[in-house]
Amino acid sequence: MSRTLDADALDQLFRSARTHNAWLPTPVHDDELRALYDLMKWAPTSANCSPARLLFLRTREAKERLRPALSPGNLDKTMSAPVTAIIGHDMTFYDKLPQLFPHADARAWFAGKPELIQATAFRNSSLQGAYLMLAARAIGLDCGPMSGFDAAKVDAEFFAGTDIKTNFLCNLGHGDPAKLFARSPRLAFDEACTLL
Amino acid sequence: MSRTLDADALDQLFRSARTHNAWLPTPVHDDELRALYDLMKWAPTSANCSPARLLFLRTREAKERLRPALSPGNLDKTMSAPVTAIIGHDMTFYDKLPQLFPHADARAWFAGKPELIQATAFRNSSLQGAYLMLAARAIGLDCGPMSGFDAAKVDAEFFAGTDIKTNFLCNLGHGDPAKLFARSPRLAFDEACTLL
Repeated sequence: MSRTLDADALDQLFRSARTHNAWLPTPVHDDELRALYDLMKWAPTSANCSPARLLFLRTREAKERLRPALSPGNLDKTMSAPVTAIIGHDMTFYDKLPQLFPHADARAWFAGKPELIQATAFRNSSLQGAYLMLAARAIGLDCGPMSGFDAAKVDAEFFAGTDIKTNFLCNLGHGDPAKLFARSPRLAFDEACTLL
Repeated sequence: MSRTLDADALDQLFRSARTHNAWLPTPVHDDELRALYDLMKWAPTSANCSPARLLFLRTREAKERLRPALSPGNLDKTMSAPVTAIIGHDMTFYDKLPQLFPHADARAWFAGKPELIQATAFRNSSLQGAYLMLAARAIGLDCGPMSGFDAAKVDAEFFAGTDIKTNFLCNLGHGDPAKLFARSPRLAFDEACTLL
């Protein structure tokens, strides 16, 4: 049976981890991005549909393609981050269900149902984006997620001719703890949760 | 600087963790649900908006209220789980932004913008649902998330007279490893990810 992880691990994943806006020059290597994916891929999606599609922008050239879509407040931190992940979802994710969910005709649950496709793609790519962030922290990286950008511009620049739509962005690297803002409060248990 | 968590922790969070459908009789105590929330609450949401609202159904009476909304395939495992969490989002989450994001008038970014409210509530409560699952695993619990249910019925039964809408359900407890199905495959790195 599993036990509670040690306090240092809980701190690293949740309690001490912070959203970063300034980055140390420490690079992020491609093998770290592969390790990140090899953790996050295992966490659950509905019918194992795994709709997330990830672009990891590591080069100056790739970052410059993203620049026109960024909101002013997200510009400097994104251009200076070692890696920016674009988390998108494939709106034809169900075409991969014969591979991903081979024991039933799960493709038929979705095909031709645009509202269910949209909700499933968006919900599950968001779950996978959260898994990405916690997997990044689990391998010692810091995150800076953002939804302040022009999604239509990102789609046009990076996903033209595909069925992939952008969900959100997340900078990855080693954050500079000296440049953190004060932490904002969270809702108390009784403000967010009810025991029934 | 953070390091990679040890292999046992990565197994417990990602690599060995499974979605469970059958539950051992081991109870889940209320203090575990409080510990779960006290981890997940720290993980990031946009503008710290924290839209997730959680109902933890622990009693027979609460489970019976959920029963009519469950799809047949999710019925037995949900009725037998020690706890079922309903993960919803508050569509007036922005009214709490003066408390949660006190250094700017963030409420004004959302008020009167229904499409942005919907996308923000859904994206961020999905992120928080993923944080809930990984926090549960981090404290030694197993998860069984589900989106196969009648959300309108859940809203009517549990959230009538509020601005909260149901996102998904997640059983919590100690899974029976003897009753797991074979694990389904995941997409390879090159099927889901691109390095740019």
